[in-house]
Amino acid sequence: MKDAMEIPTELAQLADSLAAGLVRVSSVFEGALSSEYPPVRRLCTHVERYRGKMLRPSLVLLCGAAAHPRASESSIETVCTGMHDVLGAVVEMVHMATLVHDDVLDEADVRRRGATVNRLHGNEAAVMLGDYLIASSFKLCASLDDPRFTRAVGRASAVLCEGELLQLHHREDYSLDEPTYFEILDRKTASLISCACEVGAVASGASAADVEACIRYGRNLGLAFQIQDDILDLTGREETVGKSVGKDIEKGKATLPLIHHLARADETLRATTLLALADAPRDPARAATVVESLKSTDSLSYSRGVARDLVGAARAAISTLKPSPAAAMLTAMADAVISRDH
Amino acid sequence: MKDAMEIPTELAQLADSLAAGLVRVSSVFEGALSSEYPPVRRLCTHVERYRGKMLRPSLVLLCGAAAHPRASESSIETVCTGMHDVLGAVVEMVHMATLVHDDVLDEADVRRRGATVNRLHGNEAAVMLGDYLIASSFKLCASLDDPRFTRAVGRASAVLCEGELLQLHHREDYSLDEPTYFEILDRKTASLISCACEVGAVASGASAADVEACIRYGRNLGLAFQIQDDILDLTGREETVGKSVGKDIEKGKATLPLIHHLARADETLRATTLLALADAPRDPARAATVVESLKSTDSLSYSRGVARDLVGAARAAISTLKPSPAAAMLTAMADAVISRDH
Repeated sequence: MKDAMEIPTELAQLADSLAAGLVRVSSVFEGALSSEYPPVRRLCTHVERYRGKMLRPSLVLLCGAAAHPRASESSIETVCTGMHDVLGAVVEMVHMATLVHDDVLDEADVRRRGATVNRLHGNEAAVMLGDYLIASSFKLCASLDDPRFTRAVGRASAVLCEGELLQLHHREDYSLDEPTYFEILDRKTASLISCACEVGAVASGASAADVEACIRYGRNLGLAFQIQDDILDLTGREETVGKSVGKDIEKGKATLPLIHHLARADETLRATTLLALADAPRDPARAATVVESLKSTDSLSYSRGVARDLVGAARAAISTLKPSPAAAMLTAMADAVISRDH
Repeated sequence: MKDAMEIPTELAQLADSLAAGLVRVSSVFEGALSSEYPPVRRLCTHVERYRGKMLRPSLVLLCGAAAHPRASESSIETVCTGMHDVLGAVVEMVHMATLVHDDVLDEADVRRRGATVNRLHGNEAAVMLGDYLIASSFKLCASLDDPRFTRAVGRASAVLCEGELLQLHHREDYSLDEPTYFEILDRKTASLISCACEVGAVASGASAADVEACIRYGRNLGLAFQIQDDILDLTGREETVGKSVGKDIEKGKATLPLIHHLARADETLRATTLLALADAPRDPARAATVVESLKSTDSLSYSRGVARDLVGAARAAISTLKPSPAAAMLTAMADAVISRDH
């Protein structure tokens, strides 16, 4: 997340130690995917370029530090262990798998400013590579020999896929309501993010209450993160966001701004919007008119408000943790989630 | 496997108890996939129809019985436990995931006499459903709280995907040699089958030597099984095999009969075959001419011979187990693998 947020001066030391931790996570990640077969290795190297913000490994390390009995120490490496590094790589690998498969589903050509696996190597390689990443993450997680982690990661991954299936089922369903939208988000995004927070805290021997606080933080952060993603898909520019934008409308995904808009619009505006949405898959220019009309119902600012409230809930969830640089960094990260433009 | 083999009379009682065991496995399988969301449940119900021979769960139960210290008892339920049932469901779920994704890769329309998921619900649902199955299998495996099983299943799944990626890399590579073909088979098919044998034996508290014997049995059986599959893809009829046939040539997969043929054919025949193979993806009728020309090099009977030798190796591997009805059934199953026509 470092590149996506302003680091307060008093957290500079912690930020350095987090950066060093992420280097260790990357090295575990790469080691776990170092197949003896050159074609498999080549595909995995491509995926390593997908790794951007490393949000989930950062959360493993920071929750590991913030929920640790010796939380007040300001360096990650004095409280976190090799177990945290492995868990960071595990959750990142599950996340990478979903990115690779999402790109197949979305027929996306660009991801983190590079061509997608499906674009370069075909859908078939992308499907199999995603499977290899999921399986490798479980293999890596199982190497820790601790059922608490395999249980948490297994559960989060299954919930995540359930969320993706639900989302798929509701494609082009513009009667989707907010509760169902949140149910999908909770599963497809918040489950793995809160799992990252959970396993980080558990690996530090945190108390049940502190583990619970980290889980709630992660869940709210995850929801806010996805809402911001959905907003950026409507308003961002491809060069800034670093991946194909405007895809949600093109693929018939109803996200929060649109759901709010359709609920608030009068009958005429609602009908016009639904017509534009129906045309958008064939005529992407029509998506722009939809985005324009969101202004009339203040749907973007409504959505930003919801994301802001969730960030507040995330901050509140960890207010019970002992004050520490890591806890302060978690708070700063929550703020960064909604101020980011990529 | 019951429907694919003749059960010797003296094994009738064991066969009944195996059938009862498979019913328990199915019920664990269905329970683990009973999502609270109707659209997810509907997709999973469709997958249940894919379940055919239940080879892998049968191997979990039979190796569980044959490698058990009380192996001589002829009933599965007196030696196997609920843990075996869960493990049977776990390996079957990993297998189902690969079938669902294979059908996406192969653009197959028919599987076990029904329409494939990708045909009915689109590639996107099939990709996500496969992911949901893999994740659910790990979640289920983790529920056993025993790292030996998560480690074995995680490793086998990663190896399996590596095999699929290797196979993909060698599509339309008609210079593929036998060692590489076997390396692919070993990974994409034999890894999960031997894992089924391994976890079944481990769950019974088998000795290290007996676990090792089961692993070797599974590995050889898996290789023979896949060679027979590859032969049936060339010679079978869709109504008997129950899935789309002739797909390997159409999709540019070099399998053992073809590899042998290309190595043995004289220069002219080799050139004719390569031309027909190059045309086959656009003109499936050309595949028939390739199958016809396999006769001139005896490549089908060569392949059958290799499969027979592997079955012999599988039988030999478990000859060190205590004699028991379960061990006898494993031997009968090995024979059935190459005599089956579907």
